[in-house]
Amino acid sequence: MAERDLVIGFDADDTLWHNESIFERSHERYRALLAHYHDTATVDRTLYATEMRNLELYGYGVKGFTLSAIETAIQLTAGKISAREIQELIDLGRDMLAHPVDLLEGAADTLAALAPQHRMLLITKGDLLDQERKLAKSELAGHFRAVEIVSEKNADTYAHILRRHAIKPERFLMVGNSLKSDIVPVLALGGAGAHVPYHLLWAHERTETVVDAPGRFFTIESLRQLPAVIEALA
Amino acid sequence: MAERDLVIGFDADDTLWHNESIFERSHERYRALLAHYHDTATVDRTLYATEMRNLELYGYGVKGFTLSAIETAIQLTAGKISAREIQELIDLGRDMLAHPVDLLEGAADTLAALAPQHRMLLITKGDLLDQERKLAKSELAGHFRAVEIVSEKNADTYAHILRRHAIKPERFLMVGNSLKSDIVPVLALGGAGAHVPYHLLWAHERTETVVDAPGRFFTIESLRQLPAVIEALA
Repeated sequence: MAERDLVIGFDADDTLWHNESIFERSHERYRALLAHYHDTATVDRTLYATEMRNLELYGYGVKGFTLSAIETAIQLTAGKISAREIQELIDLGRDMLAHPVDLLEGAADTLAALAPQHRMLLITKGDLLDQERKLAKSELAGHFRAVEIVSEKNADTYAHILRRHAIKPERFLMVGNSLKSDIVPVLALGGAGAHVPYHLLWAHERTETVVDAPGRFFTIESLRQLPAVIEALA
Repeated sequence: MAERDLVIGFDADDTLWHNESIFERSHERYRALLAHYHDTATVDRTLYATEMRNLELYGYGVKGFTLSAIETAIQLTAGKISAREIQELIDLGRDMLAHPVDLLEGAADTLAALAPQHRMLLITKGDLLDQERKLAKSELAGHFRAVEIVSEKNADTYAHILRRHAIKPERFLMVGNSLKSDIVPVLALGGAGAHVPYHLLWAHERTETVVDAPGRFFTIESLRQLPAVIEALA
């Protein structure tokens, strides 16, 4: 494959900028709010169960998280939580939405260096407006030929995006922190994947899949190693 | 313009299926919940003010509405609302998301008749997952060449969509119930608009703009009149 023919897709949250760390700090505030009712493990387990139950209806993102957090708090306090405390949860969600975008180390430089050589797409799931706002704040938008914000990242989603942009899977490299959402479905289509693990991973993104795609799958510690992956693929 | 060259964009909520009527029923339940605290006018005015204040952060859609409704209820009851009542608001939002899709009269027939002749796009704003789910439930998805779910509908949004699909504005007709979101920005680009008023219009969609675009702007009472509009444009 000629190096210049390679199209590169990037995940956004926890690949280009910090996200799970913001959720983690929100979980800490949430546990503190409910600490006089339940231990941390119970709070975490119940919130996660609520989120999973609501996922089909709410989808991903901060607003659905906030609604699930309120519902869980009402349940865990048997209705004893005060309106003032619920307002704190609304404020917590608002703080997450208004949070500054902190780029991951190497993201800005690497994207700037690759953009002149490659067609690059941003492919992210979550809340439409929130993802658009984060991209605008990131100042990375100019590097992407297209931005695809989707409600779920599976093989069908990627197949649809590749078809829409007339990209052959064998010319496509996806870069992201989630094996389940960024790598496995793209490898299944015949594309390549560069996994950049983030130090935190939401339980829902865990996968049991053993990735086996010699010559098409790479694990890197930093986006700065992407040029080496591209060279290996060429 | 040759009739077959015309590309038709359709708004979704209150153009193809009922939406504002679902919000209206939710407002009624909301007013009833707060009736022993405040009169209807105060409840409506305060909720709308909260929604407008939160719009930039939450965007359009049911989840943002639910969060604004909870915040307003806490404010209007000076924190006296119970957790059980807040759970009712969460349930109210959930009912809206799970609501069946009721097509507007003539939508299914008209789209089926036009689809073989014209490239058709769905262009809707709101919550990504919720709009996708409603489109799936509507059984209209097969008629559309592309689906664009956007966070705001202004001239920039439409210009971007037309460019992406290589559509000349003078070959584009947008059909929708909101002058502000569906018609005015498209006319500004040089396209045509067919306004199909719905009997309810959210205050935020009201516009003072006087539409003046002879030969390019039509008001129709039902989607069944669309073929006549297309003939007039040809």
